[in-house]
Amino acid sequence: MTHKLWQIEEFPFHPERLNHNETLFTIGNGYLATRGSFEEAYTGSLSTTMVHGIFDHAEGALVPELVNAPNWLPINITIDGTPFQLINQNDSTLKPKDGAVIGYRRLLLLDKGILRREVLFRAESGSIVRLVFERFASLHDEHLMVQRLEITAVDGNPQIEITSYIDTDVSNVGVKHWTDIQAEAGSSFTSVSAKTIQSGYGLAMASTLRAVDDKATVQFVSGQNEPTATSSFQLKQEDSIEFLKPTAVYTSRDVESPVDAAVAKLNEVANATYESLYTPHVAEWAAYWKTSDVQIEGDESSQLSIRFTQYHILIAAPRNDDNVSIGAKTLSGTGYKGHVFWDTELFILPPLSLGQPKLARNLLMYRYHRLEGARNKAKANGYEGAMYPWESTDTGEETTPSWGDPQPDGSRIRIWTGDSEQHISTDIAYGILQYWRYSGDNEFLQKYGAEIVLDTAVFWGSRVEPKNGRYELSQQIGPDEYHENIDNSVFTNRMTVWHLGQALDLLEWLKANAPADAERLTTQLDLTPARLEHWRDVIAKMYIPFDEEKQIHVQFPGFFDMEYIPVPHYEPRTMSVQAILNHHRTIQTQVIKQADVVMMIALLGDQLAPKQVLLNDWDMYYPRTDHGSSLSPAIHAWVAARLGLDDVAYHMFEHAAEIDLKDNKGNVKDGIHGAASGGLWQALVFGFCGLHITPEGEVAVAPRLPKHWKRVSFTIYFNGQQRQFTIDNTP
Amino acid sequence: MTHKLWQIEEFPFHPERLNHNETLFTIGNGYLATRGSFEEAYTGSLSTTMVHGIFDHAEGALVPELVNAPNWLPINITIDGTPFQLINQNDSTLKPKDGAVIGYRRLLLLDKGILRREVLFRAESGSIVRLVFERFASLHDEHLMVQRLEITAVDGNPQIEITSYIDTDVSNVGVKHWTDIQAEAGSSFTSVSAKTIQSGYGLAMASTLRAVDDKATVQFVSGQNEPTATSSFQLKQEDSIEFLKPTAVYTSRDVESPVDAAVAKLNEVANATYESLYTPHVAEWAAYWKTSDVQIEGDESSQLSIRFTQYHILIAAPRNDDNVSIGAKTLSGTGYKGHVFWDTELFILPPLSLGQPKLARNLLMYRYHRLEGARNKAKANGYEGAMYPWESTDTGEETTPSWGDPQPDGSRIRIWTGDSEQHISTDIAYGILQYWRYSGDNEFLQKYGAEIVLDTAVFWGSRVEPKNGRYELSQQIGPDEYHENIDNSVFTNRMTVWHLGQALDLLEWLKANAPADAERLTTQLDLTPARLEHWRDVIAKMYIPFDEEKQIHVQFPGFFDMEYIPVPHYEPRTMSVQAILNHHRTIQTQVIKQADVVMMIALLGDQLAPKQVLLNDWDMYYPRTDHGSSLSPAIHAWVAARLGLDDVAYHMFEHAAEIDLKDNKGNVKDGIHGAASGGLWQALVFGFCGLHITPEGEVAVAPRLPKHWKRVSFTIYFNGQQRQFTIDNTP
Repeated sequence: MTHKLWQIEEFPFHPERLNHNETLFTIGNGYLATRGSFEEAYTGSLSTTMVHGIFDHAEGALVPELVNAPNWLPINITIDGTPFQLINQNDSTLKPKDGAVIGYRRLLLLDKGILRREVLFRAESGSIVRLVFERFASLHDEHLMVQRLEITAVDGNPQIEITSYIDTDVSNVGVKHWTDIQAEAGSSFTSVSAKTIQSGYGLAMASTLRAVDDKATVQFVSGQNEPTATSSFQLKQEDSIEFLKPTAVYTSRDVESPVDAAVAKLNEVANATYESLYTPHVAEWAAYWKTSDVQIEGDESSQLSIRFTQYHILIAAPRNDDNVSIGAKTLSGTGYKGHVFWDTELFILPPLSLGQPKLARNLLMYRYHRLEGARNKAKANGYEGAMYPWESTDTGEETTPSWGDPQPDGSRIRIWTGDSEQHISTDIAYGILQYWRYSGDNEFLQKYGAEIVLDTAVFWGSRVEPKNGRYELSQQIGPDEYHENIDNSVFTNRMTVWHLGQALDLLEWLKANAPADAERLTTQLDLTPARLEHWRDVIAKMYIPFDEEKQIHVQFPGFFDMEYIPVPHYEPRTMSVQAILNHHRTIQTQVIKQADVVMMIALLGDQLAPKQVLLNDWDMYYPRTDHGSSLSPAIHAWVAARLGLDDVAYHMFEHAAEIDLKDNKGNVKDGIHGAASGGLWQALVFGFCGLHITPEGEVAVAPRLPKHWKRVSFTIYFNGQQRQFTIDNTP
Repeated sequence: MTHKLWQIEEFPFHPERLNHNETLFTIGNGYLATRGSFEEAYTGSLSTTMVHGIFDHAEGALVPELVNAPNWLPINITIDGTPFQLINQNDSTLKPKDGAVIGYRRLLLLDKGILRREVLFRAESGSIVRLVFERFASLHDEHLMVQRLEITAVDGNPQIEITSYIDTDVSNVGVKHWTDIQAEAGSSFTSVSAKTIQSGYGLAMASTLRAVDDKATVQFVSGQNEPTATSSFQLKQEDSIEFLKPTAVYTSRDVESPVDAAVAKLNEVANATYESLYTPHVAEWAAYWKTSDVQIEGDESSQLSIRFTQYHILIAAPRNDDNVSIGAKTLSGTGYKGHVFWDTELFILPPLSLGQPKLARNLLMYRYHRLEGARNKAKANGYEGAMYPWESTDTGEETTPSWGDPQPDGSRIRIWTGDSEQHISTDIAYGILQYWRYSGDNEFLQKYGAEIVLDTAVFWGSRVEPKNGRYELSQQIGPDEYHENIDNSVFTNRMTVWHLGQALDLLEWLKANAPADAERLTTQLDLTPARLEHWRDVIAKMYIPFDEEKQIHVQFPGFFDMEYIPVPHYEPRTMSVQAILNHHRTIQTQVIKQADVVMMIALLGDQLAPKQVLLNDWDMYYPRTDHGSSLSPAIHAWVAARLGLDDVAYHMFEHAAEIDLKDNKGNVKDGIHGAASGGLWQALVFGFCGLHITPEGEVAVAPRLPKHWKRVSFTIYFNGQQRQFTIDNTP
């Protein structure tokens, strides 16, 4: 059925994929997201709710992290005294008193943003109940989450008890962040509030439980632990009962008194029907999909993958908040601690810049609001302008940890990216200019975007090193993070040239189109004629490592002196080459973590070099690439499609499409790979479809679809207008 | 890629699906089949090779079973002293000396009948090798199996040892069947021969091992255990070596001296290149697919499923032997002991009757050769004519065990099907007439088929019970095996009427078209005018349980007096309703194991009743059906499609398509569900496409495709001519 191309299914229960599926089945609304953990507890669960912007730096931790909020999900059910719980059927310690799970299906409805679980459970008494759980985080009202529970007595006349609460005993994998925890029961609801220990953010939730049509009464009790809502009743065979549990959430980032706001919001909906809450939520989702859906005919797994990845970008993208951004693992897990990397601007942003420009603008405003942090970082390092942190949180300071987590032998590896992966500032400029070119949002550019592009250019002007009659950049990390603190990363050097050129062009554009802004920024950022002349000199004399004989870009001087490892010979590996050879050896070889020169080809395309050089680059670097980063395959798919390398383009596209759904890297439990998700869309739209802006200022496609695809349709905004493209594949 | 629609993949290794995948990855050629077990041993493996026709009745066993033949697969490899083995990465007892599996992919190429496995293995020494295993059972020469092994030193210069042998220490899940085991090593091969203990069938295999281009020497050694072929050599980094292991097999069913024949066959190919063995094999597969492939556009999972199921029917279907047939679990596992049921004629046969008529004829000749057994069974039970056994092996005797395997509490359940599931004789007649109508094979009908149809009709004429002024049939089991020994199964009674009518028509046809055969059979089977008159009387007066008020067929009188269980309320169950309620309660309810009245609709269609009655039947029986048998969903899909119930038709089709690939019933380890495989094809061709023979004697379709399908193409033989149908879906 075509609905299968809109849903992710688990049937039956797969305990061995518990954490993987918790990530896949995350729901969210751009304000918060909640992993697909169960209403009842399950050993080993990584139950997590993340609210945008709520960071905290725990005592003893190297860096702050996005905080796991109180858990609004808990609903415990007993059937004739048997606690309902999922069961690992392979557990040999199971006893009849544990009951039996005799049916199970879970569906994530991507088109509606709804998670649905149906379970058939037999109590020790022999009674069989059918439980249907639904939940969503309202896209219509971002402070509202809704749960629905339907219980049917399939066999027997069971006595049933339900206990609902909000769990404040939560942590980030053991690290506690909440203090001043208040929890109470009113006459018709329970509420909790708490504050983060170091950062002092307040957060409150209020929740109620109601039996539809008053089929059962609910009591609200302040107990020794959490206050609870409980209900006890008997169901006759074939009868059903339906409960609703709406939960409201506010933080001190939204309002002065989160708890009052949460209770007020809850009161608004306390008697609302499920349908009245569901309908506007689903309507908002339909509006999202109107521009964000990509339709692929002739490849069902790709169709499902692109919808799945777009879904996860949409639930992570802030709608009404321009002071937060999307972390590398979205809001779906604690991996990378909720920090924001280049993943956002170069991977996640493009599908939003073209498909949901308002959401893209929010993400870029997050960077604007953190210009001071970037200026501080530049200053602290002895540079001018704005130098963005490699990892960014709420403060805008550099929050890359200097050391990795302890290895099995207790040692730690020094992490250099916060010091040396400086191309982040250019990546942000790239994201801004791409957003502007497609959206036509001049107001954003003039007021906010230009300042970032120009002040990061100021940084590069101060950062380059005049040496040997040219300009160089030492101590860099390019996208290939296996090779750290190298001199003259061709990616970084070349993108710096691009960046300075764009800055000069931008200033000209401002002078012509927004002279007041041009003047303001020239003064404010000290864009003297001498500085601009220096930029031109850097553009002319930057060292771009290139092998004239082989006609290839050289990733960095000395790269080819290291040991050559033919990476394809390690197929069908089930782990990275880095893991196979170990880290210490890998960094002494030509094995590349991810698209590096190839990334530069993706970003600059034909501007970079004649096509033959790009093909030479591909032939040199593709067989050396580990794809040890999830960012790599989609970029390779995109570039290969543009170079006409159809088979490998599709191979890489499939690889990218499977990263989360198949958990090929084994780390999806930590959260969705946001960059891979956005990369997949770019591989499809920029790669296979060849979408671009022509010299005449129009949008056009230059398709190179996989042979077996029949048709691709997608919609973008261009200068505020919706533009739909339908490409029939006529091989 | 479209090649994905031609292959089954395992990536990475899934130890928890070991036995399931052994079944899926079975290869075969209609002479034998070998499960997808590994060349090296693995704990818990159910390594099995089944050769058609080699049954044996072990001492103490209730019935004979198809014998697990010696295992031709073993190739053990050590890398720098570390034995190559697959590893369950979750095994906490793993040590460095166990080596490490760092890459794994397995592919079953359905289009070519090839199983391919690629493994990356690191020895304790640190050396890494890439191992590529391929195997096939030649479709060009059914006595030949071929293995290919390529080893590449990816890292290091490993010292490698290979040991190849044929393992005679085999059993059917512990039950030994071989005696007189002889094993020896020649100068360039090893051979084994053995005899089955009770039945005395001889079987021999001869095998060699050869390094291509003489890159290594091989020694043939008679040791204390099996004779082995061994090779020891060093590989330099980046070097590869290729070994071929052809194995020849013969039985005493083929030749007088199997061992001489096996050695001679082996000598023929001992120096052949892989390509020279592979090419004709693949060409035969291409010929198979030319008529047996069904192409579905717009539904990739259905496309793959129909190819997978057709593959498994083709590898099980005897090509050059008309004295064997296909068991319920094909040759892919020990389930149902290799016995032949109605599954063959009503489920597996139709795709062969229409797509590979020569193979279908072989299967029907198996029944012809067992007419004596059927006549003996009739006589022993006090009837005339031919009464086929419910379970059939080589002898043609009834081989249904009277008792099931012991339950956990030590009790056994009495199995009544061998006594009471008498519709098998009519099922065989149905298969014969369907084969004849499509193939136009009059020669088969006249010489063989008619005798079966008529003599089984003789049986029914003697079996029916005149009672209450009508004819009845007591003590029957219809397709719904949850209700045993019931009187007047509507399926059995109605199909008996159909059978007798067909017999009368057939005799008329013979008189007109083959008078000599008509005369011969009339004499031989004693088809006196009185007997034929009796048949007409039975047709007129057989009791067909029918509720005039509700206008439905009644499965058997008393059925609706039992407890009603609304089966759909037990969704999304992950087990049968029988397992949920337990066997004892289930048989006292209206829960139906599988299509019963609905099966009758599938077989008789419009002849049975007006469409409204068929719809009434559906509405009554579908919500009572457990699908506790894998035979059920496909038949429901077929009937629902014909009744215009599109959604449920597709739902049932999907259910049928997933039985083996998703192991929804948890028993695929015992072998492929052959009937479900053939049923899927029928649901598609007879159900969705509506293929039928018109009153004018032409073939035609009456399509009712699932809405989202774009196109279906299939090919059949009709009267010896290939006919291709392409149906575009224009909803």
